[in-house]
Amino acid sequence: METLKIIKIGGNIIDNQIALDDFLDTFSKIKGKKILVHGGGKLATQLATQMSVPVKMIDGRRITDEVTLEIATMVYAGKINKNMVAKLQAYQCNAIGFTGADGNSIVSEKRPVNTVDFGFVGDVVTVHTQTIEVLLKGNVTPVFCAITHDEKGQLLNTNADTIASELAIGFAKKYNTELYYCFEKNGVLKDVNKVGSVIENINTNTYKTLVEDGIIADGMLPKLANCFHAIAHHVQKVCIGKPDMLFKSNSKHTTIQA
Amino acid sequence: METLKIIKIGGNIIDNQIALDDFLDTFSKIKGKKILVHGGGKLATQLATQMSVPVKMIDGRRITDEVTLEIATMVYAGKINKNMVAKLQAYQCNAIGFTGADGNSIVSEKRPVNTVDFGFVGDVVTVHTQTIEVLLKGNVTPVFCAITHDEKGQLLNTNADTIASELAIGFAKKYNTELYYCFEKNGVLKDVNKVGSVIENINTNTYKTLVEDGIIADGMLPKLANCFHAIAHHVQKVCIGKPDMLFKSNSKHTTIQA
Repeated sequence: METLKIIKIGGNIIDNQIALDDFLDTFSKIKGKKILVHGGGKLATQLATQMSVPVKMIDGRRITDEVTLEIATMVYAGKINKNMVAKLQAYQCNAIGFTGADGNSIVSEKRPVNTVDFGFVGDVVTVHTQTIEVLLKGNVTPVFCAITHDEKGQLLNTNADTIASELAIGFAKKYNTELYYCFEKNGVLKDVNKVGSVIENINTNTYKTLVEDGIIADGMLPKLANCFHAIAHHVQKVCIGKPDMLFKSNSKHTTIQA
Repeated sequence: METLKIIKIGGNIIDNQIALDDFLDTFSKIKGKKILVHGGGKLATQLATQMSVPVKMIDGRRITDEVTLEIATMVYAGKINKNMVAKLQAYQCNAIGFTGADGNSIVSEKRPVNTVDFGFVGDVVTVHTQTIEVLLKGNVTPVFCAITHDEKGQLLNTNADTIASELAIGFAKKYNTELYYCFEKNGVLKDVNKVGSVIENINTNTYKTLVEDGIIADGMLPKLANCFHAIAHHVQKVCIGKPDMLFKSNSKHTTIQA
């Protein structure tokens, strides 16, 4: 089977224009089929401030009300996504920007209200690969932002890490899919203060111990959950690290194993 | 040859949520291949006001500075375009949102500075049909907003009427292309105060007279220029009127002829 790389970049790259340009230049040179997924960074919060829209929090968790969704749509699907697509075109990479609504590619449902109503937040239900596959075959590179839809006309805010893992799972039947989570560190660190303390392999057993020992905590918990979810659903390779891991063979990173 | 309908809707429909939903519902039912092109309406100006960004004017003409382009990208390619795509999906129309950067579909160049520097405004240079054609064959409906790019990484603001006519011209070799400009009137009116005074046919000769007599003036001049430009470049049919002309056989409208 042919290989398809799903590469997710986070806010730290998006918020730094030079780092982003550099990444997109190198990304455009990756051979073979690839999909880029990007988060939002600080730009949505900046726009909310500029528009005097307060950030809604309940129990320390962010709520996506109507205005917040509108801002996310404008910033993620508009500003960030389209500027990335234009840059990729300049680097000879034929990109098309996507939300989950485009090509009906990612269907989600509004998160059910238990104790907290998170607002317009969508949990992924289905990935439709058909339209994207046609584009991949034509050497087009889809660029996904973290917006999905419910097939009833409603856009929904969805975690970008989840979008990346669900896309990788969705394509696992047709391609040998590889999932790369790029962020500011070299991978999962044994000691957050030591950049060199990368744990090179994590499997289900060692993961449990790492969580118990508090080495994997906070934001890394949902990220790792997405990794193991992908591995459990036939994604061939899942890695976490700096973008360097995509291009440099000696770049340390964390590989997730079953 | 198969027919391809290029349908452009203006700000008056976009600014009215009920009219827009109604249009999209009916648009989704149009059989055969189709492309939707939309303008921006008042939403960009509203956001600029909310962000306290002043509208820049020189000699009564609007200037697209960096912030204005950013707002246009967010509102046109983000908010308006993606909500339209989500609505069309709800109506079973498999839409994908496009700027000219997506699929490198519309290349423009920054308008040269003569007396006025209009800023980030792009004049269309080339339409690349290849990627869109693959999608049209797969029954996907592209939805274009009025943003293009220069192939060097720069997004540019481009007139939506021009995008519609250039797309129609670009596809005229492969399809029997029909171009429909939908706006709030039943077509070109002999007397602006009489809704029934529609001029049903305009050709190059009658056009000259209508301009000399001041019947076609102001905003209608560039619109008609786009119409005749399309007719001169093998577009089979060019009409101006209310969206009704697409669905009702007895709806009065203006047809442009060579």
